[in-house]
Amino acid sequence: MLTYSLVDLHGKSLYQYLYDCIRSDIQNGVLSPGEKLPSKRAFAKNLGVSVITIESTYAQLMAEGYIVSEARRGFFVADIHGQFLPVSDKTDLVKEDTQTAVLYDLVSNRTLTDNFPFATWTRLMRRLIHEEAPALLQIPPAGGVIKLREAIAKHLRDFRQITAEPSQIIIGAGSEYLYGLLVQLLGRDKLYALETPGYQKVRQVYAAQDVEVVSIPMDEKGIRPDCLRDSHGDVLQISPSHHFPTGIVTPVSRRYELLAWANENNNRFILEDDFDSELRLSGSPIPALFSIDVSDKVIYLNTFTKTLSPTVRISYMVLPPPLAKRFYEELGFYACTVSNFEQYTLAHFISEGFFEKHIGRMRKHYRSLRDQLLEALSQTFPPGSIRIKEEEAGLHFLLDLNTTLSDEALKQKAGARGIRISFLSDYQDGSQEADFSTHTAVLSYSGLHQEDIPSIVRGLYEAWRSQR
Amino acid sequence: MLTYSLVDLHGKSLYQYLYDCIRSDIQNGVLSPGEKLPSKRAFAKNLGVSVITIESTYAQLMAEGYIVSEARRGFFVADIHGQFLPVSDKTDLVKEDTQTAVLYDLVSNRTLTDNFPFATWTRLMRRLIHEEAPALLQIPPAGGVIKLREAIAKHLRDFRQITAEPSQIIIGAGSEYLYGLLVQLLGRDKLYALETPGYQKVRQVYAAQDVEVVSIPMDEKGIRPDCLRDSHGDVLQISPSHHFPTGIVTPVSRRYELLAWANENNNRFILEDDFDSELRLSGSPIPALFSIDVSDKVIYLNTFTKTLSPTVRISYMVLPPPLAKRFYEELGFYACTVSNFEQYTLAHFISEGFFEKHIGRMRKHYRSLRDQLLEALSQTFPPGSIRIKEEEAGLHFLLDLNTTLSDEALKQKAGARGIRISFLSDYQDGSQEADFSTHTAVLSYSGLHQEDIPSIVRGLYEAWRSQR
Repeated sequence: MLTYSLVDLHGKSLYQYLYDCIRSDIQNGVLSPGEKLPSKRAFAKNLGVSVITIESTYAQLMAEGYIVSEARRGFFVADIHGQFLPVSDKTDLVKEDTQTAVLYDLVSNRTLTDNFPFATWTRLMRRLIHEEAPALLQIPPAGGVIKLREAIAKHLRDFRQITAEPSQIIIGAGSEYLYGLLVQLLGRDKLYALETPGYQKVRQVYAAQDVEVVSIPMDEKGIRPDCLRDSHGDVLQISPSHHFPTGIVTPVSRRYELLAWANENNNRFILEDDFDSELRLSGSPIPALFSIDVSDKVIYLNTFTKTLSPTVRISYMVLPPPLAKRFYEELGFYACTVSNFEQYTLAHFISEGFFEKHIGRMRKHYRSLRDQLLEALSQTFPPGSIRIKEEEAGLHFLLDLNTTLSDEALKQKAGARGIRISFLSDYQDGSQEADFSTHTAVLSYSGLHQEDIPSIVRGLYEAWRSQR
Repeated sequence: MLTYSLVDLHGKSLYQYLYDCIRSDIQNGVLSPGEKLPSKRAFAKNLGVSVITIESTYAQLMAEGYIVSEARRGFFVADIHGQFLPVSDKTDLVKEDTQTAVLYDLVSNRTLTDNFPFATWTRLMRRLIHEEAPALLQIPPAGGVIKLREAIAKHLRDFRQITAEPSQIIIGAGSEYLYGLLVQLLGRDKLYALETPGYQKVRQVYAAQDVEVVSIPMDEKGIRPDCLRDSHGDVLQISPSHHFPTGIVTPVSRRYELLAWANENNNRFILEDDFDSELRLSGSPIPALFSIDVSDKVIYLNTFTKTLSPTVRISYMVLPPPLAKRFYEELGFYACTVSNFEQYTLAHFISEGFFEKHIGRMRKHYRSLRDQLLEALSQTFPPGSIRIKEEEAGLHFLLDLNTTLSDEALKQKAGARGIRISFLSDYQDGSQEADFSTHTAVLSYSGLHQEDIPSIVRGLYEAWRSQR
């Protein structure tokens, strides 16, 4: 039965206190709409108060519409929905979405929750609650729990040919947080050079951090060193293993050109965001820029939000030793932003081999998803009307469309059928005149359910078949 | 007893492996400064290795300063000084610390891990793994999981007389992270006004964020409004419920003066850091500045790292509705930095009443600790040689010393006896000539063990009795 502690009434009368408790439980959702409240008599007995007190409390709650009484049935929690929303309409915080509902999302790079290795994860969590209780409560160094950093160092050595001491690894609550930390480490006065096209969110983070950015155009090998040099940029942020959205893999020759650029000036660094290298679908992974850098110029960044779940907020960066030293000297006062529970769970998940297995399973899953999507596209669209590119790497591919429609019109037509899709033109920063005589859709498929593929492809075909 | 699995030595010798394990536990904080290590014989027996192996291991750890031996008492973990750098000496990241070991720390405001409600917390965690699995994998809004924000809103209403919609509450991975977020929201070009004396860490965060700060002197009621006005500061950060380190509680009249200051200009805001109001030891809590602000000028910030554990990285801020709206518009692209597991666990911990109970237990614990410390001080020091101040609020109090020694000399003498202690003079920012004709020690007792109190007080007395 509903029970409230009456030990400390916080200076209120018994009636006022009970009223406050129940009202707040209703507002809070602890008591849900339609839930039956105890009878006055039983409730009074349970709390050890008089029936009159309960009567007054219920009467007040009824008068204010929090509960309703039904003849011979008793008292029930009213549906106050609308009176109390988690996001208040008064202050107009809710952005109502009046567009057509999105049924299929080919833009989001979120992963399906079904794929999270929930059973293993929670089993490890339960086990370490028993086995590592003291460690869970010890404050880790600013860079994170050593056990996790050791596990990551080993993983990087085994799977990415990266040699790094655990001390060079800094754990943080997501890549966005680590970008912010890097700005503090490398300097807010530096000019940050970004790939264009590229992730819009990276630009948003730098803008929020009041950092000046410059966009560097790409050719088929990645960032153009000549443009980079002309830009006077200091810190280059790239994803050479698999660029989003173009899918470009930067070849080794170009990588050395970029390292040469970095070596021309003490202020220059390269931030290598390797966010989906683990999910490369075929071929051996390209060696990380970090692994061929001999001049302490490359910062390696990766995340578990893509491979595990976006709700597990753990990313990490590997700093070259001189920067790691500077990190501890200048920013070592910061507490690590990831809780110990999660850090230890992930440490065991990696070191006991579950992460490797999980990655293998995910690759298989995404390969099958991609193959079905490609198969459906080629069977549905007439030959010559589409061309597929960059389908080997990461969780998206490109689709060139032979069409007279604008990218905007193509998006709207797909949107009218509940399909959210983006085009290469969406990832330009507007500073350049890009050549979009070709219309190239970016198909991110990591969040799709297998069974939806026929409807999605059919929907796109129907949306785009008319050239008006 | 300390135990390490010797099943897999990772190719190392037994001695090398044990050395690595212990050193990493010390660096990692699993073994805390002052903690006693097992005797060589008992440890050898427990691990099933020879005493020689343990002897070599201890010898190496001693040579490198990780542990110290005390005659007839055994081996203890040395204080490698908070600045530990978990790293290879090759890269020269480790700062060796050759100071006397710290046995008792009266500076740290860390709480004892014994106090964490581990059983309840993990029980809730296990339960919600079963009951809320789907929710755990749903990406929350930028402000955090609604259920947690609702629980916090209710807690604030019930215990802090703060009325706020869950939508105004933003969850983040620690207060330091939230300061950084606020700088992004309020503007890096603003001048941030800080209390002096005050927490050094706050200054470090603002410096790392490239934000200009100005120090505002205090009188016995808190921040001086005249100095604040003269400073041209835009954003005032204060702890009016209980200032660290002075313990000053800002009275309501002064609070209204500060609100009046904020209302003079659209750019002005007050950041109310209420970090230890819940642990106030007696009297009713002072109403929060946020609760008397009618002009949307106050941002309220609080943390669970003090009340629960520093390894649970959850803080929150309550924004006035217009700022909350701006947060979602301008910074809503950020992912919430706290994992769902922790957010849901805490939501249940609060809404099921465990947080309130825990706070009650903690208050009782700290009250008893403080009382014993006060009792021991008054019994050990001669009358007139010390004066205790501000002992009612928070987890520290002030101790005026009647001495001719400098604060620096007092600290060194205490340090030689393994006692780390700070003085009010340590919390000045150097911009002002402070009056330190009185010598005021700041005694933070949250991390002390009850049984150590006699040794600590005796040690301080012995250290300070000689005036040379």
